[in-house]
Amino acid sequence: MKSDAVMGGDIGGTHMRIALVEANGNLLHSSKTATDVRAGAVDVVNRLILQCREVMAVAARMKRSVSALGLGIAGKIDRLGGTILFSPNLPSLARYPLVEVLGAALALPVFIENDADSFGMGENLLGAGRGIPNWIGLTLGTGVGGCIVLGGHLWRGDDLGYSGEFGHMVIDPNGPECACGLKGCLEAHASSSALKNGIRELIACGELRNGPLHEAWIAGSLTSEQIHRQAAQGDILAARLFHRLGWALGLAIAGQFSALGIRHAVIGGGVSNAWDQFITPLKQSLNAHSSMLRGEEAVVLRTELGDKAALIGSAYLAGLQLSQPVMETNRIGTILRKSPQP
Amino acid sequence: MKSDAVMGGDIGGTHMRIALVEANGNLLHSSKTATDVRAGAVDVVNRLILQCREVMAVAARMKRSVSALGLGIAGKIDRLGGTILFSPNLPSLARYPLVEVLGAALALPVFIENDADSFGMGENLLGAGRGIPNWIGLTLGTGVGGCIVLGGHLWRGDDLGYSGEFGHMVIDPNGPECACGLKGCLEAHASSSALKNGIRELIACGELRNGPLHEAWIAGSLTSEQIHRQAAQGDILAARLFHRLGWALGLAIAGQFSALGIRHAVIGGGVSNAWDQFITPLKQSLNAHSSMLRGEEAVVLRTELGDKAALIGSAYLAGLQLSQPVMETNRIGTILRKSPQP
Repeated sequence: MKSDAVMGGDIGGTHMRIALVEANGNLLHSSKTATDVRAGAVDVVNRLILQCREVMAVAARMKRSVSALGLGIAGKIDRLGGTILFSPNLPSLARYPLVEVLGAALALPVFIENDADSFGMGENLLGAGRGIPNWIGLTLGTGVGGCIVLGGHLWRGDDLGYSGEFGHMVIDPNGPECACGLKGCLEAHASSSALKNGIRELIACGELRNGPLHEAWIAGSLTSEQIHRQAAQGDILAARLFHRLGWALGLAIAGQFSALGIRHAVIGGGVSNAWDQFITPLKQSLNAHSSMLRGEEAVVLRTELGDKAALIGSAYLAGLQLSQPVMETNRIGTILRKSPQP
Repeated sequence: MKSDAVMGGDIGGTHMRIALVEANGNLLHSSKTATDVRAGAVDVVNRLILQCREVMAVAARMKRSVSALGLGIAGKIDRLGGTILFSPNLPSLARYPLVEVLGAALALPVFIENDADSFGMGENLLGAGRGIPNWIGLTLGTGVGGCIVLGGHLWRGDDLGYSGEFGHMVIDPNGPECACGLKGCLEAHASSSALKNGIRELIACGELRNGPLHEAWIAGSLTSEQIHRQAAQGDILAARLFHRLGWALGLAIAGQFSALGIRHAVIGGGVSNAWDQFITPLKQSLNAHSSMLRGEEAVVLRTELGDKAALIGSAYLAGLQLSQPVMETNRIGTILRKSPQP
């Protein structure tokens, strides 16, 4: 039998991905399936169990035993209680005894995390955050997730179920409405939802009257990838939405650099594929909104692991908790220390 | 000879205060003198030296030896190089070899700090932050200073000369101009300068046409204390400025609670004397701008040490660096660890 592996998962409102990961972060296998949240918690969890069993069968064929499952989930997570407290994209899973049900079905220790924290741990170990002691991470997807790495460790705050929730910082009190109910959150400017809402507003005010984005909106099939493609092909209205996205990220990152006294950020998530469309306005905005730091001192990096970051990070964090559960409750338990490789 | 004491100082644009502090934080003596920054760096430093010598003479009469001097200074501080990099209220001291000159004149080890970090360390040891592992501090004075305490330690970030600079986070891109050159900073809403600028604007737009605040503004003698007194006596325009101040603080603190995953803040500085005028709108705004935390979970505390916090904190930090200089440069040197009492 070769060395143990850990399963890492990334559970979003659209897809569930499960991977088999070695202790060094090497990804051996991964699978992806639709989440279909409308089907309800029991159905989602049953499909997740099936998907995990398939990955465990793959592991068995590779002569690997699986020692744990770690899941990164978008939302406010009770890691120690093993439930999702609140998740805008997975509402039916709130308060569901996820860790208990999965653990019993798979006969494995199961750990859950916020997905942006999983992303952060992946990039910290093997990606863009490697060797940088202090940085903030932002994941641009349906919403905007975030994480904070301090002294090389994932920062947990008071263990309230979230930290690094930059997406729900209000950056413009007069800005657009956010899915969370507030107005002017970073997420309402810098997520795929914000891009799609931007198209809706452009149509509503009569600025966008035809073309592929208009058609896709009418058909109900509009995606942020389409908006990105149109921006890349020179569509000025689409480009303006990415300009606003970059402006908002630059403003928010400048504020966090001032607050934390740091100068590195890592950006990931699906929307970061549109990097060329927003990085220049982002850097201009970061410079324009920084009074403590000179623009050239600020470093904004693009994810190196892409959609593998959260899979690798959640597997690593599961292995970590398997080997050092005591670290969860010690005096400075708010800093989750790195342990020897799981 | 009784046990050693340390001198702690708080150097602002208006006053210089020096105190004699015991290892347990007990304040034995303090003195206050005008800074008079217009006189130039050499004059300011010469008067500071005289003031320190007077405090050392007091110490000698008390049969105490003085082992170090620690100064809290508003501005971007190069702690290791011993100079002020940038200070809006002490511009003539920028790049002046302050630690070297003071050290030679007083024959003492001298350490400099940001004044809000000194405040934070004072409140952390003996004040409102006692026993709370993770919290942010805000000092409301001429400007808005800030500090971050994580795991019981003052957070230094990347040692760039600042951290916790909440005052220069942009909280409203359409907000008033800030002394730093940006627009809509927290400081432009929540400092004594912001209050005085508010009166200026009320006069300029014709809303404030007479009364004591109008007269004081015309005479060039307006202070934030006067604005506070008028608000307390029912002046609706003055009260509105404190309402805006509370709104801005609530918005900024909500954002930092979301970002750091914490729920405690401590507010000090001279303007915090107007507590009753802004705490209710602050709490309403904090609640209205929080999507992760319920309003009742957030805790906003008032300074317990008042204007003694920075004196006690700067003395403590000086004693700490005297006993554990190595901690300044170790791998996680960004966290300044507590050592045994100096």
